[in-house]
Amino acid sequence: MDLGLNGEALALRDRVRDFIDEKILPLEDEYHGEIGKTGDRWAFTPRMTEIMESLKAEAKQAGLWNFFLTGSEKGFGLNTVQYAYLAEEMGRSALAAEIFNCNAPDTGNMEVLERFGDQAQKDRWLKPLLEGKIRSAYVMTEPDHASSDATNISMPAVLDGDHYVLNGEKYWASGAGDPRTSIFIVMVKTDPDAPRHNQHSMILVERDTPGVEILRPMMVFGHDDAPHGHMHIRFTDVRVPKENLILGQGRGFEIAQGRLGPGRIHHCMRSIGAAERALDLLCKRAVGREAFGRPLAKLGANYDIIAECRIEIEMARLLCLKAAYMMDTAGTAAAQPFISQIKVVAPRMALKVIDEAMQMHGGSGISQDFPLAAMWTGQRTLRFADGPDAVHRMVIARNELKKYRSNSA
Amino acid sequence: MDLGLNGEALALRDRVRDFIDEKILPLEDEYHGEIGKTGDRWAFTPRMTEIMESLKAEAKQAGLWNFFLTGSEKGFGLNTVQYAYLAEEMGRSALAAEIFNCNAPDTGNMEVLERFGDQAQKDRWLKPLLEGKIRSAYVMTEPDHASSDATNISMPAVLDGDHYVLNGEKYWASGAGDPRTSIFIVMVKTDPDAPRHNQHSMILVERDTPGVEILRPMMVFGHDDAPHGHMHIRFTDVRVPKENLILGQGRGFEIAQGRLGPGRIHHCMRSIGAAERALDLLCKRAVGREAFGRPLAKLGANYDIIAECRIEIEMARLLCLKAAYMMDTAGTAAAQPFISQIKVVAPRMALKVIDEAMQMHGGSGISQDFPLAAMWTGQRTLRFADGPDAVHRMVIARNELKKYRSNSA
Amino acid sequence: MDLGLNGEALALRDRVRDFIDEKILPLEDEYHGEIGKTGDRWAFTPRMTEIMESLKAEAKQAGLWNFFLTGSEKGFGLNTVQYAYLAEEMGRSALAAEIFNCNAPDTGNMEVLERFGDQAQKDRWLKPLLEGKIRSAYVMTEPDHASSDATNISMPAVLDGDHYVLNGEKYWASGAGDPRTSIFIVMVKTDPDAPRHNQHSMILVERDTPGVEILRPMMVFGHDDAPHGHMHIRFTDVRVPKENLILGQGRGFEIAQGRLGPGRIHHCMRSIGAAERALDLLCKRAVGREAFGRPLAKLGANYDIIAECRIEIEMARLLCLKAAYMMDTAGTAAAQPFISQIKVVAPRMALKVIDEAMQMHGGSGISQDFPLAAMWTGQRTLRFADGPDAVHRMVIARNELKKYRSNSA
Amino acid sequence: MDLGLNGEALALRDRVRDFIDEKILPLEDEYHGEIGKTGDRWAFTPRMTEIMESLKAEAKQAGLWNFFLTGSEKGFGLNTVQYAYLAEEMGRSALAAEIFNCNAPDTGNMEVLERFGDQAQKDRWLKPLLEGKIRSAYVMTEPDHASSDATNISMPAVLDGDHYVLNGEKYWASGAGDPRTSIFIVMVKTDPDAPRHNQHSMILVERDTPGVEILRPMMVFGHDDAPHGHMHIRFTDVRVPKENLILGQGRGFEIAQGRLGPGRIHHCMRSIGAAERALDLLCKRAVGREAFGRPLAKLGANYDIIAECRIEIEMARLLCLKAAYMMDTAGTAAAQPFISQIKVVAPRMALKVIDEAMQMHGGSGISQDFPLAAMWTGQRTLRFADGPDAVHRMVIARNELKKYRSNSA
Repeated sequence: MDLGLNGEALALRDRVRDFIDEKILPLEDEYHGEIGKTGDRWAFTPRMTEIMESLKAEAKQAGLWNFFLTGSEKGFGLNTVQYAYLAEEMGRSALAAEIFNCNAPDTGNMEVLERFGDQAQKDRWLKPLLEGKIRSAYVMTEPDHASSDATNISMPAVLDGDHYVLNGEKYWASGAGDPRTSIFIVMVKTDPDAPRHNQHSMILVERDTPGVEILRPMMVFGHDDAPHGHMHIRFTDVRVPKENLILGQGRGFEIAQGRLGPGRIHHCMRSIGAAERALDLLCKRAVGREAFGRPLAKLGANYDIIAECRIEIEMARLLCLKAAYMMDTAGTAAAQPFISQIKVVAPRMALKVIDEAMQMHGGSGISQDFPLAAMWTGQRTLRFADGPDAVHRMVIARNELKKYRSNSA
Repeated sequence: MDLGLNGEALALRDRVRDFIDEKILPLEDEYHGEIGKTGDRWAFTPRMTEIMESLKAEAKQAGLWNFFLTGSEKGFGLNTVQYAYLAEEMGRSALAAEIFNCNAPDTGNMEVLERFGDQAQKDRWLKPLLEGKIRSAYVMTEPDHASSDATNISMPAVLDGDHYVLNGEKYWASGAGDPRTSIFIVMVKTDPDAPRHNQHSMILVERDTPGVEILRPMMVFGHDDAPHGHMHIRFTDVRVPKENLILGQGRGFEIAQGRLGPGRIHHCMRSIGAAERALDLLCKRAVGREAFGRPLAKLGANYDIIAECRIEIEMARLLCLKAAYMMDTAGTAAAQPFISQIKVVAPRMALKVIDEAMQMHGGSGISQDFPLAAMWTGQRTLRFADGPDAVHRMVIARNELKKYRSNSA
Repeated sequence: MDLGLNGEALALRDRVRDFIDEKILPLEDEYHGEIGKTGDRWAFTPRMTEIMESLKAEAKQAGLWNFFLTGSEKGFGLNTVQYAYLAEEMGRSALAAEIFNCNAPDTGNMEVLERFGDQAQKDRWLKPLLEGKIRSAYVMTEPDHASSDATNISMPAVLDGDHYVLNGEKYWASGAGDPRTSIFIVMVKTDPDAPRHNQHSMILVERDTPGVEILRPMMVFGHDDAPHGHMHIRFTDVRVPKENLILGQGRGFEIAQGRLGPGRIHHCMRSIGAAERALDLLCKRAVGREAFGRPLAKLGANYDIIAECRIEIEMARLLCLKAAYMMDTAGTAAAQPFISQIKVVAPRMALKVIDEAMQMHGGSGISQDFPLAAMWTGQRTLRFADGPDAVHRMVIARNELKKYRSNSA
Repeated sequence: MDLGLNGEALALRDRVRDFIDEKILPLEDEYHGEIGKTGDRWAFTPRMTEIMESLKAEAKQAGLWNFFLTGSEKGFGLNTVQYAYLAEEMGRSALAAEIFNCNAPDTGNMEVLERFGDQAQKDRWLKPLLEGKIRSAYVMTEPDHASSDATNISMPAVLDGDHYVLNGEKYWASGAGDPRTSIFIVMVKTDPDAPRHNQHSMILVERDTPGVEILRPMMVFGHDDAPHGHMHIRFTDVRVPKENLILGQGRGFEIAQGRLGPGRIHHCMRSIGAAERALDLLCKRAVGREAFGRPLAKLGANYDIIAECRIEIEMARLLCLKAAYMMDTAGTAAAQPFISQIKVVAPRMALKVIDEAMQMHGGSGISQDFPLAAMWTGQRTLRFADGPDAVHRMVIARNELKKYRSNSA
């Protein structure tokens, strides 16, 4: 069970780390300061485009691109354990993942197309996605149902001649606010009378299809997360060619399971990087400020707080690496209980570390002067995105109990 | 130790509760939706003014006004225990406190003027504040020092003839963004060579004094909290008449102690109301949504979560009432350890309950569709406003240990 | 809602406190050191009898006796709130409750006889119990069933002529090891075909009835709790006169409900006293020992630990007093959710405080040199005695949700 | 970073596991039931000796012996990571470690002799210890000082001719109650005027040396842990030949550091095995008992409890393996922060899992019918044995902060 990093993969991690430290982090404040300068928060200013595209070009040229497609010939040849170390680095920066073309939800969508798309779909959408030329959104959650139980999804897609016709509302479509996003993967109900896990399908819907209407951005703790955005969308008689269906009618759940394994674990890897950045800020503040005549580090429980943060990060990282190792060696299905474990642990751990870092900073910690508040709200959403904690705990417990008695799960 | 509510005070609480439920809550969404409609988030739209002023007028006419001045002839004749019940009600709504002229930081500022101001200061600023005609800000925290140790405050005010001259920067001046705010109470250092707790003074500074420059709003988790705002202010050669000094030079700490006792406990009372509203929303969602064929309430640990929330609210309320009782019967100084206890407990408890409520709502819980996220960020700031948790725990521990050995505090 | 103590009740509390401090605590070590000296841990040595009986006589003569029968003419005229303060004092000592004739399970058994017994039962057993001349046990739990669901109780009592015939096993019969215990109140199943809550009865069984066989003491963390004991008992064709039935056949649950309300809350009151004693020991150690050149109190997180212990004790006490107040003013049934709240909180809080006190003492803390370990194990049993935490949380949640929708409880 | 088990080491783990399951566990209850049957709890009954010696002989013959001496020619050739898996298995049973000659404190003492003893010391004591013929104790803690700061140790050993003369008291000498224990390693103060970490020495003292007096067993939560025992010992003019000094005068701390690294991590490995056994018992009870008409597993928060236990065990195991890996690859000194991390985590995690298992069992869980209570008290002692949690957190925090500013540690 090798959970370490060696040889080329280690060198790659160091290059990614240096690229982030030297080229990305110094431009983050400027980039975020540009948002909305034109009056439209959902447009890129020229400077935003310049920063993003030049860094992407530089990364691509340096061969730091598309690491995420683990175990695929289109990808980088990394396994999931190796990718974990890279993703952790990217988690330290809000921009890095996109610059290396490794950002959600595009990565998950590219994986869907790579694994389940037909050649035409790959040519049309996977190719420009892999090149970073377009962006995509994953459109599943509905306002009227608890999405913790995905079988609740009810937006119908009805076959009418050569088209499916979609009607209904979806929200929390992350990335759908980005002007570069031209394609949605939408979960729809096509077979209401089929068995519970065969009623749904995934279909590719172009953003500019008539009848697609973006109602509003969903706010995350009061923030619109522009220009990425998590959009509330209405579909009114949206006609989609039936060849846009992925894999086959009624196979939506099958695709979702394949999609969510890597996606969930990528989030967790980045959570660990976020926690490391928070602990770094915490320690810097603890030694750099004084109160009552001593550095903050030496006051009260601060040593204990630092120690507990270090312990929790270390454990979460190891658990994440083990889940990655299970994916690499036993497959996504067998790794599921481990993925669920880290999905519960990583955001919770990161939230705790970031919260302690905010507290060490006082008011500054929750303000625009530090990235901590944005990191916190980002991590908080992960406690229900891709399945709320409670559902993952249920998966873990069922797996634990199945060795005892079959009828108790 | 009567911690209950009887007779007139009980009737008053019911009137406040009904006023909030019937008149304020239905208008909250509209009010918040108006902010920024003119393009300037720091201006009131006509409709905002109309909502606020008509509700204030109605409250004042109904005699529901200025409850907060406990134990004062200018106030309502309530003691702190009784006021706690009213403040809890106000905590359920983001607008209510101002409508009853009981909102921070004006209440604390009015208390300072009432207790420590001279007649001229009272006539000029206390009167319009009590009438709700102007708003005020309390300007203490500085960017360059850990304000957990208030003796760190260093902005100088130097006497020059009949004026004090102020130079420096302050931030987190809550309410300073409000266009109706015309007066600041500013903590300054006037006597750098005096003993540690006699170096500071409080002085009244009019907002439009030359040299007062509002640099930016401090963002709370990415939100500007407009039009109230928590402003970063620069003072450049600001000349303030020496008669604006409150109580006397070097007596800033004395005033601060008097100011913070009630202020802290009022925050805590409102925290309890916020937690009650969150639990109410949690329960409604738990019985109103289904997953896996059952109402959320019946799934997993949700009964346990609800029970623990109820327990924690109940305990925090009782502790808050006891601290209020101690203030009423033993005075602010003797009540200090109890105030510190509830100051640690109330925001932490409210954060936990609100967090559980958010989790029960899934993505909606952190969005603009529910007040939970705004409540959470508001409560989070209370963990360092008016003294961070760590300092309050230090106060509690010192008080506990002083009965054992004097040299251990 | 007066949760305080005034006048005579306050004076009484002070007398109880002084009696414990001056007369009981100094003899505790000697008393416990006597146990087993004769070779039989279930017998009283002459010195044990002398200590116990002389203190009881002195307490009785001083009028410090039978406080527990709140609201009864046979009792002391105290209400539950007032008794709470006395019980807290008794909780500081392992012997005190019995010396004032206020110890479990006798108090609960006396309440059952007082409320539900007939005159003959009162004359024969209540009278000597109230005088402290005999001891009693409450015999309910069975080895083969989860007693969290008391309807699981299955030991049959079959009417045969003028006698009920009992067969089966019971365990955790607290006090049944005491040689002075002559009477058991036993929960039996008499009506297996009746509705679920009318199948059981309570019956008085004399310890020396043929067929009653004490199998073994149940060990509490390896300790036999001699000479009190928690016994495992076998009943083989035990014939009990039918007039020993309490209240009537099938009314066992009705009695149990009446019995458990006060019993549960008395335990909680004593838990608070135990926590106070633990915090007292913790603080003494914290100021009295040094490491790394400073008193332990000043090291690491110890201030925070002390502060959190004080906060938790304070909140638990207030919650306990409120539950007592609800019992006094609204009755046991209406007070049930509050009793469940404090039943969850008090042992958990005491366990935490005692655990911190043990940790502050290092190895000594868990040894015979301090009472902390025995206090901890005693409190740990309370997390399932009289209903496990999980069941009490269910009660609290149901009560909370019933205002939302009837079908969700 | 290979944290797994392969090839021969894996086969060895399986053999150890099977030996424990098939030969040791079935005899545990009988063994423990024998203790004290002769009237002397500190003697072995013939049956105890028979069980222990026959199992030891069988283990030795099967080559399952002395795994613990990692990286030594005298040992088994295992590295620390591999040994971790074996130690985890042993942690599931109270007897197993001794049967494989891998039990504390003998393992630590053997390591001291192996690394630091001279040939005469090795011949005389290491040889019979490695053969399991004698037992030993480690005698360090003193009643009058906080042993969290080991420089507090003050029992003097004064050179007088060819002997050191020892006077003072020590306690918590684990294993000193065992009649087979013939040798103590004692930490003494020999050089009171030397620098702080050069004042102490370790010396070998035979148990039957005149002046060595065992005062009493220290009780662990009321239990004497016979016949192993944690003894309180008085040394009165105990004369020890100077050649019994280990390594050299003033080198006690140097030895202690070498001794504690492996010792601490072995405890942690066994803690993980204890937690696994507790979770196994928890799950069996959860599916095997019913309340309210459903298996306990399906009630309330039990799924969540099971999931959290699994998560915490998994993370602690990985952290323990990483600490072991660091010892193997970077040495004990560099591994220290990792050892401190797992030392904080492992007992805390095990206590939590065992506590949940006890709660799932109700009263039975803390009784003699299950091993859970004994496991709990054993784990509880580990929170201060070999350094209390607080000291380990200090080590971790200092290590974390040293990269920020040297003067803050």
